[in-house]
Amino acid sequence: MKTYQEILESVKSIFDQECFVSAPQGLYEPIDYTLRLGGKRIRPVMLLAANQMFGGNEESVRYAAIGIETFHNFTLLHDDLMDKSPIRRGKPTVYRKWNENTAILSGDTMFAMAWRYMLKEPHSNLQEILNTFNETAIGVCEGQQYDMEFETRSDVTIPEYIEMIRLKTAVLLAGALKIGALYASAPADDTDKLYQFGIHLGLAFQLQDDLLDAYGDEKTFGKATGSDIRDNKKTYLYLKALETANDEQRAKLTAHFQSQPEDTTDKVNEVLAIYSTLNIRAQVEQAIDHEFELAKQFLAEIHVDQEQKKPLQTLTQMLLGREK
Amino acid sequence: MKTYQEILESVKSIFDQECFVSAPQGLYEPIDYTLRLGGKRIRPVMLLAANQMFGGNEESVRYAAIGIETFHNFTLLHDDLMDKSPIRRGKPTVYRKWNENTAILSGDTMFAMAWRYMLKEPHSNLQEILNTFNETAIGVCEGQQYDMEFETRSDVTIPEYIEMIRLKTAVLLAGALKIGALYASAPADDTDKLYQFGIHLGLAFQLQDDLLDAYGDEKTFGKATGSDIRDNKKTYLYLKALETANDEQRAKLTAHFQSQPEDTTDKVNEVLAIYSTLNIRAQVEQAIDHEFELAKQFLAEIHVDQEQKKPLQTLTQMLLGREK
Repeated sequence: MKTYQEILESVKSIFDQECFVSAPQGLYEPIDYTLRLGGKRIRPVMLLAANQMFGGNEESVRYAAIGIETFHNFTLLHDDLMDKSPIRRGKPTVYRKWNENTAILSGDTMFAMAWRYMLKEPHSNLQEILNTFNETAIGVCEGQQYDMEFETRSDVTIPEYIEMIRLKTAVLLAGALKIGALYASAPADDTDKLYQFGIHLGLAFQLQDDLLDAYGDEKTFGKATGSDIRDNKKTYLYLKALETANDEQRAKLTAHFQSQPEDTTDKVNEVLAIYSTLNIRAQVEQAIDHEFELAKQFLAEIHVDQEQKKPLQTLTQMLLGREK
Repeated sequence: MKTYQEILESVKSIFDQECFVSAPQGLYEPIDYTLRLGGKRIRPVMLLAANQMFGGNEESVRYAAIGIETFHNFTLLHDDLMDKSPIRRGKPTVYRKWNENTAILSGDTMFAMAWRYMLKEPHSNLQEILNTFNETAIGVCEGQQYDMEFETRSDVTIPEYIEMIRLKTAVLLAGALKIGALYASAPADDTDKLYQFGIHLGLAFQLQDDLLDAYGDEKTFGKATGSDIRDNKKTYLYLKALETANDEQRAKLTAHFQSQPEDTTDKVNEVLAIYSTLNIRAQVEQAIDHEFELAKQFLAEIHVDQEQKKPLQTLTQMLLGREK
């Protein structure tokens, strides 16, 4: 049994050993650049951890682990272009370092490369594994579409927001876990529970991300950025505030989230002040706790020894900063 | 045995019966729009014809036929964005009718939808079928990259150009044929020959396309557009002309293919005059004949009755306007 840390080391070594460069260089250099930027490699770690939990053989999911991360990085590459984000992991994004066409085509190629990896390892249940991967991919695209549509809509509801982050973030975490379990030929019932664990973990993770953007993370001395407020992003915090605000507060919030002032200090402070009056932080914490508890329950119900769940529990703690 | 025309009718009816709309509408409307624009549906027809040639069951390749066309239309959608082409099949392209982000994300989703179709029909050899599809996809991406790189390169060779059109055009035709054959569990040797038939047919088709752009198609009263000359596209005609030109002609050609005059009449006429002096048309016809002959040979070597090859022979005639 490998620990979470050992699994992470395995994933890093798998990526170190893999070559992503081929001809034409102009197409594959941006792909290599993207895949070598690092990041937390959460999805391949989850895939390997799920596989190990059900007694799978790490070698058999090596390429699936690369595949899921290649797919994830493809979505980041295209998202950065669509969102016009200049920086990713401290480095210029592909469309900025190269150009828009390179970002489009290298992204498309990464999606196909992800498939090449997913197709590499035979399995008696390969069709279900590949279906899981593909439905995940379609979900992520739909989530990104909702995210973009929400920017120009003023009537987004909380259930719609939850559905958006489920598609954009949670299904890929859940899909990575399910693929790992399917490769280990885990029982269908346990595989479903693991998928649900991933969904609720993903929702909690994204809600926490919304919260950290506004309030920072005291535990890790991270600092708040307020970038969601500056960018008028209708996060869970904003939607929850709208829901509980009185008419005056609602008018102020709505006005702030349509404004784009040069100096955003006052805007951020005033929005945070309204959040504070409405006790938004505690309400979001509650929502995160709720998803976290659901995730824990689904993990608890899976029929494997407690010991074998440890890496996924450690991962959960890493992601949410909460006691397992 | 269905004729070429009957297979085309089958393909049209398959598309008519298929629903491409889903939520979110903003994502799927451009996809439905793209897939309903029509076109010659060459690739699904080839897939069905290949399948029938080896005694396959049309129902079993129904979704693969949709999948290959969905993939092809995805590449057109992204290519139109990269090339900034305003019109496709007489209608505004997706990035013009909607916007760039919609074109990116709807395209990505179409690629995933193509996979959903490819995964729908089980087959004992599904992994090879899917590998064929995916390697085709990667080839098409590489071909598009070379095509874009050639725009700014002045040292493109004829073998490089042939390799580019092999990847960008021919491998998808060949891949469609191979997938049809694999679904019919055709012998490996025949499948390989059919693939080679597709490659050489694709090369002949693209070279003919280059030729028609400059000279039009007398048989069908089509007219020349000269758009490749206007757009400084280094087609086979241009590269062949450079190869055989004297210093003066080469200097003129090079200068014309770097110029972007408002009125292009003189430019087009002068380039065509040089082509004429150098007998380029006959040389390209020769190259097309060569590829056409190779294609015919590969088709002839396949071990099925002459009668069963008819739909693919008709298709070849349609594509190349040459006697089978």
